[in-house]
Amino acid sequence: MAQQNDLFKKLVAHCKEYGFIFQSSEIYDGLAAVYDYGPYGVQLKNNLKDYWWRSMVQMHDNIVGIDASIFMHPKTWKASGHVDAFNDPLIDNKDSKRRFRADVLIEDYMAKIEDKIDKELAKARKRFGESFDEAMYRETNPRVAGYVEQHNAVRDRLAKAMTDGDLEGLKALIEELEIADPDTGSRNWTDVRQFNLMFSTQLGNIAGEEGKLYLRPETAQGIFVNFLNVHKTTRQKVPFGIAQIGKAFRNEIVARQFIFRMREFEQMEMQFFIKPGEQQKWYEYWKEARMKWHLALGTPADQLRFHDHDNLAHYADAAVDIQFNFPFGFKELEGIHSRTDFDLGNHQELSGKKLQYFDPATKENYVPYVVETSIGADRMFLAAMSNALQEETVVGANGKESTREVLKLHPAIAPIKCAILPLKRNDERLVNMATDIFNDLRLSFDVQYDDTGSIGKLYRRQDAIGTPFCVTVDFEALDDNTVTLRDRDTLSQERVPIGQLEQIIRERVDMKHLLQA
Amino acid sequence: MAQQNDLFKKLVAHCKEYGFIFQSSEIYDGLAAVYDYGPYGVQLKNNLKDYWWRSMVQMHDNIVGIDASIFMHPKTWKASGHVDAFNDPLIDNKDSKRRFRADVLIEDYMAKIEDKIDKELAKARKRFGESFDEAMYRETNPRVAGYVEQHNAVRDRLAKAMTDGDLEGLKALIEELEIADPDTGSRNWTDVRQFNLMFSTQLGNIAGEEGKLYLRPETAQGIFVNFLNVHKTTRQKVPFGIAQIGKAFRNEIVARQFIFRMREFEQMEMQFFIKPGEQQKWYEYWKEARMKWHLALGTPADQLRFHDHDNLAHYADAAVDIQFNFPFGFKELEGIHSRTDFDLGNHQELSGKKLQYFDPATKENYVPYVVETSIGADRMFLAAMSNALQEETVVGANGKESTREVLKLHPAIAPIKCAILPLKRNDERLVNMATDIFNDLRLSFDVQYDDTGSIGKLYRRQDAIGTPFCVTVDFEALDDNTVTLRDRDTLSQERVPIGQLEQIIRERVDMKHLLQA
Repeated sequence: MAQQNDLFKKLVAHCKEYGFIFQSSEIYDGLAAVYDYGPYGVQLKNNLKDYWWRSMVQMHDNIVGIDASIFMHPKTWKASGHVDAFNDPLIDNKDSKRRFRADVLIEDYMAKIEDKIDKELAKARKRFGESFDEAMYRETNPRVAGYVEQHNAVRDRLAKAMTDGDLEGLKALIEELEIADPDTGSRNWTDVRQFNLMFSTQLGNIAGEEGKLYLRPETAQGIFVNFLNVHKTTRQKVPFGIAQIGKAFRNEIVARQFIFRMREFEQMEMQFFIKPGEQQKWYEYWKEARMKWHLALGTPADQLRFHDHDNLAHYADAAVDIQFNFPFGFKELEGIHSRTDFDLGNHQELSGKKLQYFDPATKENYVPYVVETSIGADRMFLAAMSNALQEETVVGANGKESTREVLKLHPAIAPIKCAILPLKRNDERLVNMATDIFNDLRLSFDVQYDDTGSIGKLYRRQDAIGTPFCVTVDFEALDDNTVTLRDRDTLSQERVPIGQLEQIIRERVDMKHLLQA
Repeated sequence: MAQQNDLFKKLVAHCKEYGFIFQSSEIYDGLAAVYDYGPYGVQLKNNLKDYWWRSMVQMHDNIVGIDASIFMHPKTWKASGHVDAFNDPLIDNKDSKRRFRADVLIEDYMAKIEDKIDKELAKARKRFGESFDEAMYRETNPRVAGYVEQHNAVRDRLAKAMTDGDLEGLKALIEELEIADPDTGSRNWTDVRQFNLMFSTQLGNIAGEEGKLYLRPETAQGIFVNFLNVHKTTRQKVPFGIAQIGKAFRNEIVARQFIFRMREFEQMEMQFFIKPGEQQKWYEYWKEARMKWHLALGTPADQLRFHDHDNLAHYADAAVDIQFNFPFGFKELEGIHSRTDFDLGNHQELSGKKLQYFDPATKENYVPYVVETSIGADRMFLAAMSNALQEETVVGANGKESTREVLKLHPAIAPIKCAILPLKRNDERLVNMATDIFNDLRLSFDVQYDDTGSIGKLYRRQDAIGTPFCVTVDFEALDDNTVTLRDRDTLSQERVPIGQLEQIIRERVDMKHLLQA
């Protein structure tokens, strides 16, 4: 765990130092749980979005894209269930004026009991050695058994109160357990109230409640309300899908873990419209397809796993997460959900518009079922970065060992594809040749010219931002029009004719390798 | 004007019919002044954004990109002047409960006087024929002179009230002119009040005013607050620029003209940081560079013009618009603004952080000046569409004339690059060959397979969405592995070996042609 923590700190520091991610409004001491993408970050994120988009829209005849607005008609969120059910139970401490999620306070209390149990078990394990039977000890040791009983009682009462929406029960539990504000120790609490996680705002041209707008908490609804328009204008037949990339907003009370849980974030969602009854088949299809997508990018299989949902959301009849082993453990990276006709059905009811598909084969009308794939672009960014960042010992030309930090990003998503480096910056012939190469290559991809240090130093800098190739223009180049092409991962150097550079690099960084995988 | 209106209606209808743009939340009767991009719309918009991004970031060593959040620290908008000065004067009609901009009510009143003058002049022109001297008539005809005098008096009082922020003066003027609600005739007005155009919302974890957030009304400030971080992590030297594409929001009371003025819109902004004193040079540089960018896309020179600002904004010492001849006349498409050190200076003062550049040549510290280029992505989309949509008379193979609607988009920004059409959909050999070509080409670009009609019909459909190339697989193809490649604009058909298709199309749709221009 300590090691994981170190890794996470290193990752966050790397993101800042090399211009991938900055805290939002840092000069004003930041805005909590909001981040900005810096020069290399925006390139990497755009490439990840491009990979997702192409694999969905370009590679599937029956998937098309849209880009719906963040603002939608407020009835949308009535139909989707967000107005009524997208809540967290909130409690304020009257002394510290700090605000908490009631359930999180109780969970934190439970975590403390778990710590106590762990400590007791560790002690016992030390005492009894190999013969130690943990399960037995939990039941028989009076102190541990007491903790376990207490823990389970709290857990059950919390679960019941959450299921029932019993706010008074939550408050009673907090008082009974004598839970205090962790910073001030005050137990002077307000009542618990439901807090809706949607950010709301107000249209200027309409007064009062009618002008109330929400910032969308998910992009999916922008797809559902456009179902008919897209179906009609593209003449797609069920099964077909609609893909979308865009911002969503959630008014999280507790937001943690860097860009993993932000108040403003970006989703890549695809809603696949199918015939009712075929959901199991398509659910399995998309589970497999999405896992393949991650593996194609080079994510090791043992860093990914499926995790079935314990409790299904109100709209789903099956749901699974693809979890990634983040520096803070396995957590949700993507979800695949069988949403039934919940959304289209509700929109149909509330709008009075028929959101149906006429099946030319069976001559039937039906509201299609939906299987959704939903991935956070920011989480994908974090997964790609934590996967890619590595420290390696390398041996220099002088035989000395040194450490290099290298971002082993797939070439197709690397922010910069190639750096062009003249061996000496004060030799006009080298500089001119390097500049010519640079101006030629930049028409095709993102390249960088750099002559601000020794070649070794320039290599390290490109390693740190994940540039897969470096071209070095040396004196030999002046004779035979060849340059060295250095590979980030193998460190191999090959001599390549300048006239073939564009084609060679293009072939190696081409996204088609990902799309074909 | 009537002709322009027709053109506009045709354009809006085309955008809907072919899946470029839908009204937001249409099944709920829409959300005013908010629109969604459909399947072809999102592709075209992405390509336009890509062109802008590459021409800025990929083609300039000294411009880098970022992607800042929509949420920013609220002090940002204090520093930028938006909290205090980004207002419209608002008035409500107490009977109809409708809301208006006070200045627009008065401007509409003035427009009616102008109409009267125009009518009188038209009558007189008819009566006096060629010898008619309009300027003289305006002064000497008592009726016209009276209108002119009245008009100018209102104009001057409006200008003064707006400059002074004199809300009572605006109200007095409305009452004096007996301006009524245009729909109901009611003159029962509230007082005029200042209405801030920023949408606001509230953080859940902080109570009260401190938790108030704004949706950014411009993307530029996300660049300014990141100036130091970007400068440090990219080691750029002044002059250098930061480019960004992203959403912005303005709570417009009156929003009109399709996607031209929306409450949610997307900006492409670049802030260029320079040495104070060099602003004139860089202002001229960017004026020219941006005009070239538009011309490269094929926009006719006579549809674009520079328009100097009459009144400079509080932050600018020079400002010009690039106007495009939209279907509703010449209007702002892009702005180039010399913003001085207004923004960085204010952020420095309010944050207490030094937002300065150390000039290694002169050993001086200074707050850089800024020249900005700011273009609306949605307006650019509208300009590209209205430029591209044409009706042509074509002669078919049977010698008959017919009309085709064709979108003459530059190939590099067209949503679909090539359509693959088997001559007969019930011939397995043709279908297989066409499918193979389709699967090969789709790895490189957005292509479409279509066999749902006669070739002529399929061509028309591709014309209507702007596809520059169509490949037809006919029986000859089975013999010699060549297909016909049809050009959208010239209608020419050439026979091309299948093995060369990818390379030929790639070369023709390559964005490098735009970037080199």
